[in-house]
Amino acid sequence: SRSLNLAVIPGDGIGQEVVAEGLKVLSAVLPQDVKLETKEFDFGARRYHATGETLTDADLDALKGHDAILLGAIGDPSVPSGVLERGFLLKLRFAFDHHVNLRPSKLLPGVATPLAGQPEIDFVVVREGTEGPYTGNGGTIRKGTEHEVATEVSVNTAYGVERVVRDAFARAQARPRKKLTLVHKNNVLTFAGHLWTNVFNKVAAEYPEVTTDYIHVDAATIYLVTDPARFDVIVTDNLFGDIITDLAAAVSGGIGVAASGNINPSGAFPSMFEPVHGSAPDIAGQGKADPTATVLSVALLLRHLGYEAEAVRIEEAVSADLGERGGLPARSTSEIGDALAVRVAG
Amino acid sequence: SRSLNLAVIPGDGIGQEVVAEGLKVLSAVLPQDVKLETKEFDFGARRYHATGETLTDADLDALKGHDAILLGAIGDPSVPSGVLERGFLLKLRFAFDHHVNLRPSKLLPGVATPLAGQPEIDFVVVREGTEGPYTGNGGTIRKGTEHEVATEVSVNTAYGVERVVRDAFARAQARPRKKLTLVHKNNVLTFAGHLWTNVFNKVAAEYPEVTTDYIHVDAATIYLVTDPARFDVIVTDNLFGDIITDLAAAVSGGIGVAASGNINPSGAFPSMFEPVHGSAPDIAGQGKADPTATVLSVALLLRHLGYEAEAVRIEEAVSADLGERGGLPARSTSEIGDALAVRVAG
Ligand SMILES: CC(C)[C@H](C(=O)O)[C@@H](O)C(=O)O
Ligand SMILES: CC(C)[C@H](C(=O)O)[C@@H](O)C(=O)O
Repeated sequence: SRSLNLAVIPGDGIGQEVVAEGLKVLSAVLPQDVKLETKEFDFGARRYHATGETLTDADLDALKGHDAILLGAIGDPSVPSGVLERGFLLKLRFAFDHHVNLRPSKLLPGVATPLAGQPEIDFVVVREGTEGPYTGNGGTIRKGTEHEVATEVSVNTAYGVERVVRDAFARAQARPRKKLTLVHKNNVLTFAGHLWTNVFNKVAAEYPEVTTDYIHVDAATIYLVTDPARFDVIVTDNLFGDIITDLAAAVSGGIGVAASGNINPSGAFPSMFEPVHGSAPDIAGQGKADPTATVLSVALLLRHLGYEAEAVRIEEAVSADLGERGGLPARSTSEIGDALAVRVAG
Repeated sequence: SRSLNLAVIPGDGIGQEVVAEGLKVLSAVLPQDVKLETKEFDFGARRYHATGETLTDADLDALKGHDAILLGAIGDPSVPSGVLERGFLLKLRFAFDHHVNLRPSKLLPGVATPLAGQPEIDFVVVREGTEGPYTGNGGTIRKGTEHEVATEVSVNTAYGVERVVRDAFARAQARPRKKLTLVHKNNVLTFAGHLWTNVFNKVAAEYPEVTTDYIHVDAATIYLVTDPARFDVIVTDNLFGDIITDLAAAVSGGIGVAASGNINPSGAFPSMFEPVHGSAPDIAGQGKADPTATVLSVALLLRHLGYEAEAVRIEEAVSADLGERGGLPARSTSEIGDALAVRVAG
């Protein structure tokens, strides 16, 4: 019999609530012969306040043994900005070499978008996850004085760019439209821009069936609101990916339904799956959070581990559920989870 | 009698056409006693191909003597990406210390927006113009090999941040809502983020009437499409400003109406005014380009030089013209310019 050995990090704010529903749906969809084992970890603001720790070497060791990680949300206003982000979220992405940050955007029927005319939206962003301006390179001199200078260094390597570009081409090749767009700012960030553009063009030669194009990140934000249907797969750097995937989430139904995977395709370390939204402390504990983004992250997790049929079942259940939601009274976090669990089981 | 000594850079693609209309409206609005003198400069792709030059020291000297610069657009697909951007546009911003990059966004009545429900949009972005990842710091080693490393360094100084933050506070103080939002990514770019946040909070203490808040750049893109009315004045760094002002232009009527100023408030060098759009070579020479963004840039130019009443007259003319446009057959570039010239003169 098979087993799925899952590390669960509910985290802060609404993280607890949405992860509970994600696990509910996971249990309901898994085949009978798969033994689900979960181990919960208490990372986040509470642990930080209690111990000063965000993510220790021992923690990383403990996480390593799992098939995958499911995360709710990390972050709380009581913790200074950057402490949990750099000390936990980014530390984990870097330690486990999560270089493919996968963020699909699909506007499902019945879902509200801020855009007029209900456009067709169905694309996926492959965001690089371990380089760019996220490395923590840089520093400050003369801090707090009028002569302070602070730098941030974006680090881009051929190795790091090529592996994520290859992943994106493979994904584009596997989709019906077979189109890949590189998003960068190569007219200003010419050093990194040339590297990205050259690697992109080199790998493109191996994928003659994939249509490619390039747009600057500023123009990409325009297309995301005026013509999102032009996108199929987007590959981009860590910071540009951060920015455009929030916008992509906003136009395709909001962060209540945006899922993501922090993937290490080699399998050397477990990949991590999490909703794009944050911990939303203002609505925590009230049963108001929409668990859909977490449930869709569970689908990405299952697909990553080879449970394709189960991933599709979750996605179809979410589609059906959202399609019926319009006009209905608002449901609680667990009511939505229950409804989805019933659908995937049935 | 007074004089206005203007350097005119039509540039590439539609630049020629839209600048001609901008000048038409400028001539029509200027008081009789102001002598308008214009000198045209041939910067752009043609000159680059003919001479290899983008912007020489002699060019900078020649530009220096003017009260202001009006630019159409620079850029052509025949020139490698980055050459004219770094060699002309950014070189000029840096040489003339254009540290306040001013980009107002106002959704005028009758103007189409991709957002549903015609939201209220009336804010201005103060984008830093001389620092951040735009400085050209960085480099490449082992270029073209599988071991290539390319870096981009974002440089932020207390001097550079404080002057633009002060400019933004002064603008916020002068507006009815008196609200200023800092947009950054201080949870990840912690070195630059702390500098920006500290300077912002320090200057805020001098402006007790200005309401302040902070949002991350990724979240800012969400608000720009779901709740743009929350913004009054935004201050942000060079790259974030580049990205969010294209999005801001898109939601508030498109780049056909988005104006900008590259301002040196000290007056040590002439400031430059230009539409946010590019050279649009695909529609160049066909009379299809909308000159409104250039005309509104002329308004910013006039305001900068102290011609407040004339700036308002242009803005009101544009408002009235756009309000009547809906449903009418498309007009040519010069028909729109003519209509605006008549309005401001009347
Ligand atoms: C919280 C933050 C570190 C993170 C990021 O910038 O990557 C978040 O915005 C995201 O997109 O996952
Ligand atoms: C053309 C390019 C150098 C420029 C920029 O990035 O600043 C443009 O996008 C702008 O916003 O004015």
